[in-house]
Amino acid sequence: MLHDPNRVYVFDTTLRDGEQVPGCQLTPPEKIEIAKELELLGVDIIEAGFPVSSPGDFQSVVEISKAVTNPTVCALTRANKGDIDAAIESLKYAKHPRIHTGIGSSDMHIKHKFNSTREEILERAVEAVKYAKRAVEDIEFYAEDAGRADVVYLAQMVEAVIAAGATVVNIPDTNGYCLPDQYGAKIRFLKENVKNIDKAIISVHCHNDLGLATANSIAGLQNGARQIEGTINGIGERAGNTSIEEVVMILKVHQVLGLKTNIDSKRFYELSQMIRTQMRMPVQPNKAIVGSNAFAHSSGIHQDGFLKMRENYEIIRPEDVGFPSATIVLTARSGRHALKFHLERLGFSLDKEELAQVYNKFLTLADVKLDINDEDLQGLMAHRLVKN
Amino acid sequence: MLHDPNRVYVFDTTLRDGEQVPGCQLTPPEKIEIAKELELLGVDIIEAGFPVSSPGDFQSVVEISKAVTNPTVCALTRANKGDIDAAIESLKYAKHPRIHTGIGSSDMHIKHKFNSTREEILERAVEAVKYAKRAVEDIEFYAEDAGRADVVYLAQMVEAVIAAGATVVNIPDTNGYCLPDQYGAKIRFLKENVKNIDKAIISVHCHNDLGLATANSIAGLQNGARQIEGTINGIGERAGNTSIEEVVMILKVHQVLGLKTNIDSKRFYELSQMIRTQMRMPVQPNKAIVGSNAFAHSSGIHQDGFLKMRENYEIIRPEDVGFPSATIVLTARSGRHALKFHLERLGFSLDKEELAQVYNKFLTLADVKLDINDEDLQGLMAHRLVKN
Repeated sequence: MLHDPNRVYVFDTTLRDGEQVPGCQLTPPEKIEIAKELELLGVDIIEAGFPVSSPGDFQSVVEISKAVTNPTVCALTRANKGDIDAAIESLKYAKHPRIHTGIGSSDMHIKHKFNSTREEILERAVEAVKYAKRAVEDIEFYAEDAGRADVVYLAQMVEAVIAAGATVVNIPDTNGYCLPDQYGAKIRFLKENVKNIDKAIISVHCHNDLGLATANSIAGLQNGARQIEGTINGIGERAGNTSIEEVVMILKVHQVLGLKTNIDSKRFYELSQMIRTQMRMPVQPNKAIVGSNAFAHSSGIHQDGFLKMRENYEIIRPEDVGFPSATIVLTARSGRHALKFHLERLGFSLDKEELAQVYNKFLTLADVKLDINDEDLQGLMAHRLVKN
Repeated sequence: MLHDPNRVYVFDTTLRDGEQVPGCQLTPPEKIEIAKELELLGVDIIEAGFPVSSPGDFQSVVEISKAVTNPTVCALTRANKGDIDAAIESLKYAKHPRIHTGIGSSDMHIKHKFNSTREEILERAVEAVKYAKRAVEDIEFYAEDAGRADVVYLAQMVEAVIAAGATVVNIPDTNGYCLPDQYGAKIRFLKENVKNIDKAIISVHCHNDLGLATANSIAGLQNGARQIEGTINGIGERAGNTSIEEVVMILKVHQVLGLKTNIDSKRFYELSQMIRTQMRMPVQPNKAIVGSNAFAHSSGIHQDGFLKMRENYEIIRPEDVGFPSATIVLTARSGRHALKFHLERLGFSLDKEELAQVYNKFLTLADVKLDINDEDLQGLMAHRLVKN
């Protein structure tokens, strides 16, 4: 395989790990609509479902396979023939099919979930990869609960499944347990000790139980992983998965890392809104990148600094993630309500009287300047340097 | 000063950095109620307001000073005499008063916010600390935008303000810019290069613009900081501040770090609910620790593993953060609705017919077992090992 060493592949599991959350279930047409949006966003892999789990999930994989062209379509399985047969069948229309199979790798899971031994589990892992490989070239293997697994055993497992044909090895922190330095060290150990590791891509799949999913994913990339798995808005099991929008924007802001994705970040905000609406999963105002307050400067000190130069308090331009900017909607025809909305978005809360005064100034300005942007609005509020 | 080297002080700024967010404003009685709850939670310092910014903020600091006994009460200022005079006056009833003063430390802020020079800013920093120190013993200094500051200049500033009397030096990542390894390295540099650093506590104040506030705070603690600043639910400016509940639970789960706080974590969930209601700031279901889905196991694979042994998929017991457990409310008198609520909390979504069947089984069980807990509910759902 020949990969650009600086390219990070983005694996979206909004439609699998996200969609299995109670209340988030989608209709088949909704799934197809989201899959098409994910394709436009530029994700490399769409995990479309867990085909053996229900006829609905099976059909979703079939329909998404038909609906998208560029992204790889991936189906989840456990490490058994029935699951894999269903996945193979569901992927028959995919232009770029991938099977995602795997098994527990921590002693906790081996003993208390499978009632088995390390040796037996290793054998089942290898058999599953070989069985899937007969039908599909692109096989991703997940070592479940790798975050809590013994790293030497994990390395043996990774080496064995790559030898059996795995093209991607996923090292999930299934329970959101690891600290970033621990998770990074685990990835580095694999990179340095698995002798066939360069024949596969290491993938990071983190959960947010301790609020560390994004940091762990970045630590993984810093130590040699080149695929990140996550969801839009960070939805998913329990406290959710890694937020794709956070990881992508970190790589953009920190160019020193030298890593790039194929994501068109200007599409984040709109897709985030679509996911929150269709999956009935609210996004809190203080959610990074896509929350309604993510770019709202509220304190007087910050507004003052922002007015002098926006970079004083802004490391990402809202327009870089498609966040609605005042330039889009505010004109001399705009009403008090639109003005109030945008001022509140920037952190200004006005009573009726002050709004009326500012609105008059706004109309005067809008008469001479057609596109009223955020800097203009900050200028209109220059009398309010101290919080109220 | 004599400090337990493993003790981490928790500095809550829910009532200052949190409360300044548009829509989050509290009445004075609400602030006092929350301050009392923060005292019960066990926070060490309550930042009660920014007294010079408004008469309301001034009065809040006065009232909170009267209302609490154990926590230090802290008032924010810029580095000028007017701000500091107002803070001193507002703290006159505090049993343990602290003034939190500071100024920008990055070249960006020095040039483009203050139109000044490094030398002049250093002088203003020292003067402010000395001026505050005349009236109050406990002085915390913040080096604003330290995340983007030159570390050698930052070290000079820190050394100078400690020499001037600062007892705590706050190294804020004001714009949520740093990666965890960068932020940790900055703290370590100060620890290793500021010669009077042992005369003060290093504090971490992180923002979540890139989703890294919690990870950065932990990186700071791993490198020598011993105070963390944050808010309940991570509310605050833009994408918010570090979530105190996340940092505290990380220290509990990762005892290998050897760090402890004085927090009674069982109070987190109730306080989180109070903050979300009173401050009108929703918490998304997938928020770590306090989100409504934070402990809900939804996929069939996970439910199966959870049933065999809960530690397979659970690193924190919900009851450790006061998350409502089925034991509290489910009895033979409970209705279908309560049962449905708790089953959904655990990740089971039931239609009417299945609910009726499970409800009958539940009533039979509740007749013989008075306290129906989560394991009992999982048992009632044992027929549902595969997701639907």
